Amino acid sequence: MYEGVVQDLIDELGRLPGVGPKSAQRIAFHLLAADPADVRRLADVLVEVKAKVAFCSICFNVSQEEQCRICRDPRRDPAVLCVVEEYKDVVAIERTREFRGRYHVLGGAISPIDGIGPDQLRVRELMPRLADGTVTEVILATDPNLEGEATATYLTRLLLPMELRVSRLASGLPVGGDLEYADEITLGRAFAGRRAAQ
Amino acid sequence: MYEGVVQDLIDELGRLPGVGPKSAQRIAFHLLAADPADVRRLADVLVEVKAKVAFCSICFNVSQEEQCRICRDPRRDPAVLCVVEEYKDVVAIERTREFRGRYHVLGGAISPIDGIGPDQLRVRELMPRLADGTVTEVILATDPNLEGEATATYLTRLLLPMELRVSRLASGLPVGGDLEYADEITLGRAFAGRRAAQ
Repeated sequence: MYEGVVQDLIDELGRLPGVGPKSAQRIAFHLLAADPADVRRLADVLVEVKAKVAFCSICFNVSQEEQCRICRDPRRDPAVLCVVEEYKDVVAIERTREFRGRYHVLGGAISPIDGIGPDQLRVRELMPRLADGTVTEVILATDPNLEGEATATYLTRLLLPMELRVSRLASGLPVGGDLEYADEITLGRAFAGRRAAQ
Repeated sequence: MYEGVVQDLIDELGRLPGVGPKSAQRIAFHLLAADPADVRRLADVLVEVKAKVAFCSICFNVSQEEQCRICRDPRRDPAVLCVVEEYKDVVAIERTREFRGRYHVLGGAISPIDGIGPDQLRVRELMPRLADGTVTEVILATDPNLEGEATATYLTRLLLPMELRVSRLASGLPVGGDLEYADEITLGRAFAGRRAAQ
């Protein structure tokens, strides 16, 4: 329908997650009218990100070096390991400034419907990290959804026979939320996990 | 917050229209995990679109050549000129297969609030196209909104003194729509523009 390369651009943009045909068209028209330098910068950063960004050889966090910032940082506690699904979970946890240990990024969660089992995740790479006794606590910080829970349950079974403290993040009411708007599972967990008032 | 180049990518994506910070992050993570060849193709088409796509020297439609497909096509009626705001309007009208004339793309609409007056549009370039008497009818197909109406009113005043038929697209109820959901202005126009039943 559109001139060749414009249609190509709309097609490529439409492959991005959350970008439908209408948004792709809108972005394409914006780019057609945009300053060539701006478009060039976007193109360059796309190439650069694939050229420069790799995964940390230890924890599989996103990294521009062989080892990521966190694995290189000697101030991080090597005894505590937090297992997460994705790089963005590392960023979310880092933002809290609550955690001073290290990470292990699985690269997803167990999801039979998508054909993702433990072999598709970096589970095999997790085991050698726990072998020499440096790590004494593993925090399973997978998403509180079906896939995340399945992954945490699988890892719990795998890790419990080892000499390790294995913990899960607390479930409960989100801070700043309204009790009446909480779904029944969250509210149920908030009850089950209730603490003595001080 | 993110590794340098990843943050750059999120920033660049966040500048696209309709892409908020969360979407930009989501797209960036998708691209991090994507096949490098796919990302490369997107980067290439971005560069290509700016290198290859220019504007038709006659009608200012998007074109990969000096003159666009429509201006080059000898089967198109040179007597009828349809004035539109944007390239996407040309595509929308072409899709109807109702119009066999040629176009003039203004590049926007009069919008004092955005500082766009007739001088920022290709109004000056429209006049020579009407000078030699080839064009006998001008259809003003601007958007049926405030800016489009202002533009059409401005052009009507400019063109009426000339020996031309000047027309506007019909306003009325959208086909397939429900009368009860039509806004009062649309419904009012549908009344005003009523035709004899046949």
